[in-house]
Amino acid sequence: MATGGEGITLWYQREVTIPAKKRGCHYISDDILKACKEELNQIKFGTAHIHIKHTSASIILNENYDPSVLTDMEMVLNKLAPENLNYKHTMEGPDDMPAHVKAALMGSSVTVPITNGKFNMGTWQGVWLCEHRDHGGSRKLVVTINGLKK
Amino acid sequence: MATGGEGITLWYQREVTIPAKKRGCHYISDDILKACKEELNQIKFGTAHIHIKHTSASIILNENYDPSVLTDMEMVLNKLAPENLNYKHTMEGPDDMPAHVKAALMGSSVTVPITNGKFNMGTWQGVWLCEHRDHGGSRKLVVTINGLKK
Amino acid sequence: MATGGEGITLWYQREVTIPAKKRGCHYISDDILKACKEELNQIKFGTAHIHIKHTSASIILNENYDPSVLTDMEMVLNKLAPENLNYKHTMEGPDDMPAHVKAALMGSSVTVPITNGKFNMGTWQGVWLCEHRDHGGSRKLVVTINGLKK
Repeated sequence: MATGGEGITLWYQREVTIPAKKRGCHYISDDILKACKEELNQIKFGTAHIHIKHTSASIILNENYDPSVLTDMEMVLNKLAPENLNYKHTMEGPDDMPAHVKAALMGSSVTVPITNGKFNMGTWQGVWLCEHRDHGGSRKLVVTINGLKK
Repeated sequence: MATGGEGITLWYQREVTIPAKKRGCHYISDDILKACKEELNQIKFGTAHIHIKHTSASIILNENYDPSVLTDMEMVLNKLAPENLNYKHTMEGPDDMPAHVKAALMGSSVTVPITNGKFNMGTWQGVWLCEHRDHGGSRKLVVTINGLKK
Repeated sequence: MATGGEGITLWYQREVTIPAKKRGCHYISDDILKACKEELNQIKFGTAHIHIKHTSASIILNENYDPSVLTDMEMVLNKLAPENLNYKHTMEGPDDMPAHVKAALMGSSVTVPITNGKFNMGTWQGVWLCEHRDHGGSRKLVVTINGLKK
């Protein structure tokens, strides 16, 4: 049988602002964990939903050890959604529509399992913010934490 | 500290049927919000999980202001999953296997944070239904809302 | 009005190990349902979050009837993330970086609605594990089930 059953459900929600990053993929697990340390500590098990309030950047889980993976990912993303297609939505520059495509493919949020107050991810797994714009500015996240009280 | 803690957890679930749409991407935030207005109004904060019960259409979050983004997205999707590859799964026509590929890449559901009875998305962010079939028919969604009671 | 309201919230979490699979896409609904049968049976409605603790394999929902869809999907994935690009992250072999790209595009987890103790998916919808490595070994999942008690 799994761990679990009835108990007190805890709910937390906070906005986390990530300062402007250059175009490409970036590790942000530590930013989230630092901001949500107190809430996470209350949870026996549950989930954290990490949502980005923008449509030209993505939140994903991926490899968090070798920085080459970050730059290789950006290289492939630019092949999948190149800037030189015959786009109609070009008002905000050639990097804008490809940014929406990348956001559609990679997604705007992840849900991470929590176990004993910690993210229950793989050893080499971390949260990435992928900035798809050349000058995207700071990005706002909403983190919703929900779980059984310790 | 984040908003939150103990309290009464509310759970709601309903099916929402979206009438047949033509192939391509469509805004459906208003359909969801209208169907779930009463439930959302009860929630201080939590999440809404919007799931599509089909494998040739997707639910995503993306830009909800300029309709050119909808048509540009469809254009890129057709490049990523073209109809003229050497597919084996062709019984249901040339648009079927590409539809499954698009569903695999974009996903079948989104989770949206709720704050004070409303979807807590970005200003330009909305829910899209992407219909990947030429004649997909009406589509069934399951919306599960879960949060702290106001 | 939707089904729902106040009640007892149940929480369950368990790890599920999927034995090593060959590279490609595989049906795993039955593995999850078998492992989580007792927990699911307690739930009136809620959600199951199925997370893979690896960055070179994916969990998605897709067509679960015609095995040709599995092999066609693998064919397209290899076109989207080919092995012969100019990657820097090559230590673990030519299949590794493409595996991370596929994981980024398809995602590491799905959330499935639960209704009356069962997954509320479409008739032709199932859970897939996509193994992106040539020799990925066994894979660990964390399943978090959360819902209103029957």
